[in-house]
Amino acid sequence: MAKPCVFCSIVAGEAEAHVVLDEPSFLAFLDVRPVFQGHVLLVPREHVETLPDLPAELRDDFLEAAQRLATAVKEALGAQGSFVAVNNTVSQSVPHLHLHVVPRTKGDGLRGFFWPRTTYADGEAASCAARLRDVLA
Amino acid sequence: MAKPCVFCSIVAGEAEAHVVLDEPSFLAFLDVRPVFQGHVLLVPREHVETLPDLPAELRDDFLEAAQRLATAVKEALGAQGSFVAVNNTVSQSVPHLHLHVVPRTKGDGLRGFFWPRTTYADGEAASCAARLRDVLA
Repeated sequence: MAKPCVFCSIVAGEAEAHVVLDEPSFLAFLDVRPVFQGHVLLVPREHVETLPDLPAELRDDFLEAAQRLATAVKEALGAQGSFVAVNNTVSQSVPHLHLHVVPRTKGDGLRGFFWPRTTYADGEAASCAARLRDVLA
Repeated sequence: MAKPCVFCSIVAGEAEAHVVLDEPSFLAFLDVRPVFQGHVLLVPREHVETLPDLPAELRDDFLEAAQRLATAVKEALGAQGSFVAVNNTVSQSVPHLHLHVVPRTKGDGLRGFFWPRTTYADGEAASCAARLRDVLA
């Protein structure tokens, strides 16, 4: 038998979670290993693996729930902002789409190592953009 | 005079950018200081500051564009996955909503320091979830 999906188990009520939002198409609950306390995961009840797999009819409600959660972590937990993120495939610990909403506060220590940056040599940016445009066209 | 918004300048065609997606309500272009090459920013043409400020009528198209970009960085650049993220207020370098789409590849070095984690002591998770539920109710 295939290993059951832990987020499907939570959606089915077979695994425990601290649920914060319970909607017809989505569930949001605390991440058990939070970046900061109040770190929430928003998951569609339907098992889809990555963000591009989210069905079109769920998009508006999914982003609306993300907006509400981003506001809620500020209001409920006294955060100054939020970090909203999805890992698709790489660094994705559970292969069931989950959007992270993490409360952020200035000086919380996440800044320094959070966004390592690189550069483009001459011409590299133009060629990179051209490849993306070709695929998107 | 207020300092002009650099993303509004790009949207207006007054500042240069490597544009990859040019749509009626959105523009996507290369981040000039990419986490990895091909790191794209998706911005609404309308100046809104954070994700919760995105007007309801733009939500579906915004997330659809994000889905297309997450697929495009894989197809165009040979990535294995993607990282899709928004910083709201804290760590937000430009106060004009921008969604990062970053190509990811296993072993690209981002994993180790990318998701520092903390824990909940007894009762802390339940009380944190209760505060969020109160605000979301």
